[in-house]
Amino acid sequence: MMAWMNRESLEETLATERVCYWSRSRQKLWRKGESSGQVQQLRELRLDCDGDTLLLLVDQTGPACHTGRRSCFYNAVQGDRVVVVTEPLIDPDQLYGK
Amino acid sequence: MMAWMNRESLEETLATERVCYWSRSRQKLWRKGESSGQVQQLRELRLDCDGDTLLLLVDQTGPACHTGRRSCFYNAVQGDRVVVVTEPLIDPDQLYGK
Repeated sequence: MMAWMNRESLEETLATERVCYWSRSRQKLWRKGESSGQVQQLRELRLDCDGDTLLLLVDQTGPACHTGRRSCFYNAVQGDRVVVVTEPLIDPDQLYGK
Repeated sequence: MMAWMNRESLEETLATERVCYWSRSRQKLWRKGESSGQVQQLRELRLDCDGDTLLLLVDQTGPACHTGRRSCFYNAVQGDRVVVVTEPLIDPDQLYGK
């Protein structure tokens, strides 16, 4: 998955070792798994060579994606089509307790 | 590594299967490996769940990072320090023929 962090979410993540992002759409801290239970335990936080991208190595509880898939990157380009290449581990309605 | 693409770089990448990014600083197509020889052969191109992030699975020739490291993500946060956790495969001066 790809998500955004700001200083506050980064500081919280490093302090608690539970991953917290910054939701740009909701303009608030997004404690990953808060509503779904699919938390991320931080193993290591890395910065890239020019220091503007972070890579988080995590222990992921269940799926990371809101669609119930392990990864958000489940659409593959094949020729002139986009094909879904992985299936949900769990029904998203179940994930969010609907 | 993380880099940017625009429509033109994406179309070229899919057509040639040699990865081409968009350099925002230079405002031009960045054919990865053009000066260093460290090209990326596309294996699969994926889109994420909301279609605003791409994940490229590639065969990387040598290091991907301009520092001569395999990966750009070689700085790890350890306590209150940032520690370099991988060493270059090759001297960057050699990489760029200086």
